[in-house]
Amino acid sequence: MSKPKLFSPGPINVTASTYEAMSAPMIGHRGKDFEELYADIQPKLQTVAKTTQPVYISTSSAWGVMEASIRNLVQKKVLNLCCGAFSDKWYDVAQRCGKNAEKIQAEWGQPIDPELVRAKLAEGGFDTVTLVHNETSTGVMNPLEEIIAVVKSFDDVLIVVDTVSSFSAVSVETEKLGIDCLLAGVQKALALPPGITIFSLSPAAVERTQSTPDRGYYFDFMEFVNNGAKNNTPSTPPITLIYGLQHKLNEILAEGLENRYARHEELNQMVTEWALKYGFEIFSPEGFRSKTLVTIANNLDIDVSLLVKTLREKHNFLINGGYGKVKGSTFRISNMGDETVETITELLDALDDVMPSIIAK
Amino acid sequence: MSKPKLFSPGPINVTASTYEAMSAPMIGHRGKDFEELYADIQPKLQTVAKTTQPVYISTSSAWGVMEASIRNLVQKKVLNLCCGAFSDKWYDVAQRCGKNAEKIQAEWGQPIDPELVRAKLAEGGFDTVTLVHNETSTGVMNPLEEIIAVVKSFDDVLIVVDTVSSFSAVSVETEKLGIDCLLAGVQKALALPPGITIFSLSPAAVERTQSTPDRGYYFDFMEFVNNGAKNNTPSTPPITLIYGLQHKLNEILAEGLENRYARHEELNQMVTEWALKYGFEIFSPEGFRSKTLVTIANNLDIDVSLLVKTLREKHNFLINGGYGKVKGSTFRISNMGDETVETITELLDALDDVMPSIIAK
Repeated sequence: MSKPKLFSPGPINVTASTYEAMSAPMIGHRGKDFEELYADIQPKLQTVAKTTQPVYISTSSAWGVMEASIRNLVQKKVLNLCCGAFSDKWYDVAQRCGKNAEKIQAEWGQPIDPELVRAKLAEGGFDTVTLVHNETSTGVMNPLEEIIAVVKSFDDVLIVVDTVSSFSAVSVETEKLGIDCLLAGVQKALALPPGITIFSLSPAAVERTQSTPDRGYYFDFMEFVNNGAKNNTPSTPPITLIYGLQHKLNEILAEGLENRYARHEELNQMVTEWALKYGFEIFSPEGFRSKTLVTIANNLDIDVSLLVKTLREKHNFLINGGYGKVKGSTFRISNMGDETVETITELLDALDDVMPSIIAK
Repeated sequence: MSKPKLFSPGPINVTASTYEAMSAPMIGHRGKDFEELYADIQPKLQTVAKTTQPVYISTSSAWGVMEASIRNLVQKKVLNLCCGAFSDKWYDVAQRCGKNAEKIQAEWGQPIDPELVRAKLAEGGFDTVTLVHNETSTGVMNPLEEIIAVVKSFDDVLIVVDTVSSFSAVSVETEKLGIDCLLAGVQKALALPPGITIFSLSPAAVERTQSTPDRGYYFDFMEFVNNGAKNNTPSTPPITLIYGLQHKLNEILAEGLENRYARHEELNQMVTEWALKYGFEIFSPEGFRSKTLVTIANNLDIDVSLLVKTLREKHNFLINGGYGKVKGSTFRISNMGDETVETITELLDALDDVMPSIIAK
């Protein structure tokens, strides 16, 4: 079976021009050639991440940096804000790192309630909070500003924000909001192949790190700080992916961030309207919905796996049939990356083509 | 300045056909397409690694798995066998993971003496030994069989072997020798871009892991074991690099392992003879020399950085001017990957062209 075009929420379709950029000649990572590459993308990353602090590149998937944020920043106790597969797992990972951890658990499909965060932090003893901005498993986009405002009303509590599937598609004011550790994947809204994770640290996060014991080596934030100052990475970087990152950052800045945000919002709305047209409900409440994917509730009780299969076989498009415990009771369509009104229209037309046979079952 | 062809010891030159293989359509990593890719390369990896045990793929540089071997396997005390930049650093990393660690320190350029290992292990209390097979910083290839035989004469001591820069170029009988954790980079002898590390575990290593506390999540070996059994990886894999790995494994098996070993030996000998012709000495003693690079001692006291610079400017080839504390007093030429008699001859001719001006200084 030929490989389908991906409309699943990451990894997503990678363009030919990105692959071409990635195929530039290999360079050594401990010399001037790499330093120049690193220095070239640094201000571009800062622009997209909306921070004047350095943005680091980890040779790992996002989970590496999610674990690192726990290892480096948590000294007393972490509060994990859980509302889906990835945010829930962060609580598990915190415990596996041997840290004291508590959680607030929202029902899947619902956002985190800032007032519950306030009440929990008021109990005292916490020094770190983790938040997944855009919970890819449920399509919930959490109220970032409200939650951070609550966290910031407590002294010496750092806020870690996972923007794995929202980075560059939705405005996140890293520095203005006071995010202490922002992390993002590249195989989601950036439309790169997976393999690196980018992250930024506030001065308070760097200060905290320095007094945290048992940071290990590979994910020690101080290694990133010290090597980053020399335009380098602690461990061997995946050079092809960094070439790809350079290419995508150039494209993003040429498009303009505001245009990019507006494009994602428009495409997201198109998918939402398609779902509503059939009588589907959206899994998350209005005002708390992702702009990079739509998680559709299967209130019509269709055979979701048949929909996914038929769409792939007939049109070679791949959507996702729901994640984890909401597999089948939801399905997900991504509008991340380089999609346009045209390509999303193509997808929705294909879905319209197969839907009658699915609904008839 | 245009990018030079790399004859530095990793990353090295990546062929156009590898980049082409890496540019195959992106696939989701939690579906059949990825499982098929994983299942296809698994027996090929086992053939090259010479083991019937699974071979895992880590989304990290080699240091990730080097740290992981410490975190997962060391319960009592680790003995780090140190003879160059990378093996020395492993001792540092072990301590940073909060483990009891001792080391045997050989002088840079010298191999590890198996009898010193025997004497140290006889003191008791050790449960793990780390060894860098091919120390890339000094060009030393350690006496693998002799050292492992010593380790195996002690009960319940696991041996971890880093074959970062020898994997696929030199025969390593992982299972026959009883290597408990074999790890390898891909940007060295495999001639892929950096970004993944492959490793294999013996049943004893898996058993040890299960009773080791504080393994964390990202580098928990049990995550690799459990996901590997389902033809998958714990975290999002760098799919383009795995496409590239599949391509290189196909090439390696088409070449034939014995032919590949012989090719590397022949090319290595060509570079060695070139150095001896000028009156240079080889940094490591005969019988303990890498087959994938030649580390040349600068006994002629040439200006090594001028040699590197002139060769790059005049011929667009990049060799390496020595690593860490032997920078300038040694220099390194790689014969890893896809080099042939023709391409190494081109390099040596280019070196011959610039050497008179360097010696005259």
